[in-house]
Amino acid sequence: MNEALLAKLYQIVGADYVITEGDSKFPYMYDEMELTVRPQAEESSIVVKPADAAQISQILKLANETGTPVVVRGGGTGLCGGAIPIKQSIILSMERLNKIIEIDRANMMAVLEAGVTLADLLEELEKHHGLGFPVHPGDEGAHIGGMAVTNAGGARAVRHGVMRRHIHGLEVVLASGEIIELGGKLVKDNSGYNLMNLIIGSEGTLAVLSKVILRLYPEEKHSATIIVSFNRFEDASAACLDILASGATPLAVEYQDKHLFTGTAEMLGKKWQLEKGEADLMIIVSEADEDRFHAACRLIYEVCEKRGACEQYFAGRKSEQAELLLIRSQHYEYIKHMIGHSFDMSVPVGSVPVFLSGLKSLAAKYNTVTNVTAHIADGNIHNDIVLVNGQMPDYAEELKSEMYGLCFSLGGSITGEHGIGKLRREDLALQKSEPELKLMHGVKYLFDPKGILNPGTVL
Amino acid sequence: MNEALLAKLYQIVGADYVITEGDSKFPYMYDEMELTVRPQAEESSIVVKPADAAQISQILKLANETGTPVVVRGGGTGLCGGAIPIKQSIILSMERLNKIIEIDRANMMAVLEAGVTLADLLEELEKHHGLGFPVHPGDEGAHIGGMAVTNAGGARAVRHGVMRRHIHGLEVVLASGEIIELGGKLVKDNSGYNLMNLIIGSEGTLAVLSKVILRLYPEEKHSATIIVSFNRFEDASAACLDILASGATPLAVEYQDKHLFTGTAEMLGKKWQLEKGEADLMIIVSEADEDRFHAACRLIYEVCEKRGACEQYFAGRKSEQAELLLIRSQHYEYIKHMIGHSFDMSVPVGSVPVFLSGLKSLAAKYNTVTNVTAHIADGNIHNDIVLVNGQMPDYAEELKSEMYGLCFSLGGSITGEHGIGKLRREDLALQKSEPELKLMHGVKYLFDPKGILNPGTVL
Repeated sequence: MNEALLAKLYQIVGADYVITEGDSKFPYMYDEMELTVRPQAEESSIVVKPADAAQISQILKLANETGTPVVVRGGGTGLCGGAIPIKQSIILSMERLNKIIEIDRANMMAVLEAGVTLADLLEELEKHHGLGFPVHPGDEGAHIGGMAVTNAGGARAVRHGVMRRHIHGLEVVLASGEIIELGGKLVKDNSGYNLMNLIIGSEGTLAVLSKVILRLYPEEKHSATIIVSFNRFEDASAACLDILASGATPLAVEYQDKHLFTGTAEMLGKKWQLEKGEADLMIIVSEADEDRFHAACRLIYEVCEKRGACEQYFAGRKSEQAELLLIRSQHYEYIKHMIGHSFDMSVPVGSVPVFLSGLKSLAAKYNTVTNVTAHIADGNIHNDIVLVNGQMPDYAEELKSEMYGLCFSLGGSITGEHGIGKLRREDLALQKSEPELKLMHGVKYLFDPKGILNPGTVL
Repeated sequence: MNEALLAKLYQIVGADYVITEGDSKFPYMYDEMELTVRPQAEESSIVVKPADAAQISQILKLANETGTPVVVRGGGTGLCGGAIPIKQSIILSMERLNKIIEIDRANMMAVLEAGVTLADLLEELEKHHGLGFPVHPGDEGAHIGGMAVTNAGGARAVRHGVMRRHIHGLEVVLASGEIIELGGKLVKDNSGYNLMNLIIGSEGTLAVLSKVILRLYPEEKHSATIIVSFNRFEDASAACLDILASGATPLAVEYQDKHLFTGTAEMLGKKWQLEKGEADLMIIVSEADEDRFHAACRLIYEVCEKRGACEQYFAGRKSEQAELLLIRSQHYEYIKHMIGHSFDMSVPVGSVPVFLSGLKSLAAKYNTVTNVTAHIADGNIHNDIVLVNGQMPDYAEELKSEMYGLCFSLGGSITGEHGIGKLRREDLALQKSEPELKLMHGVKYLFDPKGILNPGTVL
């Protein structure tokens, strides 16, 4: 990288906060995207660690003047290569913007620097009796800024929705270096175009987030995890729809192919409690009030009975719930050696049964299998293309294209929660119309005329 | 209006659906904005009533080619002049796009043409047992498209949030005439920039909505209206915050100056049930499940007792609840003869007490009063500048500017739910930074390069 530019970066953040060489750079180069499909990072990129928005502003001004790509580095927990610098870039690590500025109890809002991790936030909230934050993408190493800019989802969206719903304000640094505040600690705000919601989900391509204002919620201290089995997937899906229609609002409704539950349990030396049935749901209930908690559990139990549940197992103790959650969350460890490509498609929730059986049929057509893990009440399905002899099979692109075709025929999206990143950049045009893509390009150019922010991502 | 253009419009929609002359045009010229501040409509504007998106597309193409302004006409229930054509315009009345395309029970979604009224939707939902839609801006003549494009709020946002939260898909016609679909019946969708959320709240200046996909919810058939009085506003506000923190999630928490409740009741020949106290709240509870309903009522009762409520009145019967709601909703009739200008500011909910006492002090400073009606749990305050001898007082601009100053000092917004429209267009720059306004202008130009869509609105 250009010496004059480097000298200026040293000047802005100090020599301790620039990494230009060596092994310590490597952890900043990749996210959690699968090796089989991930692009090569441009390893001559350098890491810069600003202390605050003012330094980010100076860095972006410099980058914009010199046309130098900037890739923001959050927790690195992304799954689609959004944080991988594919051109020689300034990797803008947010690790020093880790201050919890305020937990505002009266307004039930948190004001956070963008580099605060979800773990930090949850730990801090434990000290503030009665307050919680619901969105949980799985890995608590995720930065709040990253969760905001990727509009993170996760299992708990059933009750609480995705990140977008909980973000009330942002401080962002534009490519020009200008710092702007959007929104605030407001519940209602209709003052002009909602640029905040445009930046949420833009994956670091429109602006750099430096601060996030999140809504907090009453701590939900009464919880249970219910696992239920049905004879047919259609019954499990119908039970899921009935639960949604009942008003019970569970935290999460998860489906996995039974062999993933039993196989993962076995791998962990545990026992999967459901012996009967073919299609298992894991339902998490969580409420602030005890009476409401019992009412929700009762509703869910009744609905599942009515839909012909063959077995229901109720875990109320924390340790038991943690064990079930562990089995659910470790399934990836159980199958990751066989996965070539993971999907994140979403379809209307009523179309999940036809989508699932269609995915299975398509896999069978290629004489292979596809493993399914689903945030079923959100219509968000994670399935995969499995490796053949450790290699991506020849038919991978063809199978992917057929699976996408099925998804589109049901009005679905290629990504429910993980985002476009670099992994799905070329696929975006399959889903979007020409005029919509043109507007997206226009938005990109408006915010970032020189294209310095996270090139090769989204568009 | 140009004869050639007129001839083409006749061709597109048919002669029955164009109004160029006479009294029948007048109802299309204004919305519900107060007479004292509303701009003059350009009465040479003409009314065109397309049948569908295809006709809207043809009209917009024509308007774009000829640089003719287009103002969309929904239910005309807006309060800030968004629907008033201030230049010679094609008033695009959406009244024929009134089809309820689908009530999709499995997905709990409604697919609606933009001109469907809220009343139409609610009536249709009565035929679909167990389904409801929560957002209610007060006037059921509002079109769903209008509610979407203005991001309508209303009292029920406490439990359910504003329109943005419930919109999952839009069909929109761009200024170019291109028709695009955004989103769909999806719960999670992270495919590229969220243009849908940019158009929501853009008040007819970025695109014309032709179709809206809304999320539906379990019908909340158990309801109660609780009115509670406190000795001091600070106690009422603290009770409101405690209710939010309790997890009770009431449908609405409304505050009004006591004289508005009692005076409106008297005007209607009714009795306001609270005799003690100085600061009254109206809390509406609404749940799908009976046990959850009782739990919520209990929580609210306990919180109010703890905060020193002097009187609580519980209305469970529908007729009694309707009477209380009538008193709440008719306050405007009670005071409208005296109002010169109505505000719609929002502040962080914890700042409501200092904001309210500040507004009252500012009014007193000008030797006048200001009436306060508040969606208090949303921090959304409606207050006013009252007329003096039937005229807008000389100090109106100065008082407004001081009230805005107070609002900004608390991190507030000039409009929580009504929008910018034409009423607050010049005020927007008081709240927003230069770079944010510049981006908004860029967005406007990107979507509508010739500036034909609702000129003079928002920007």
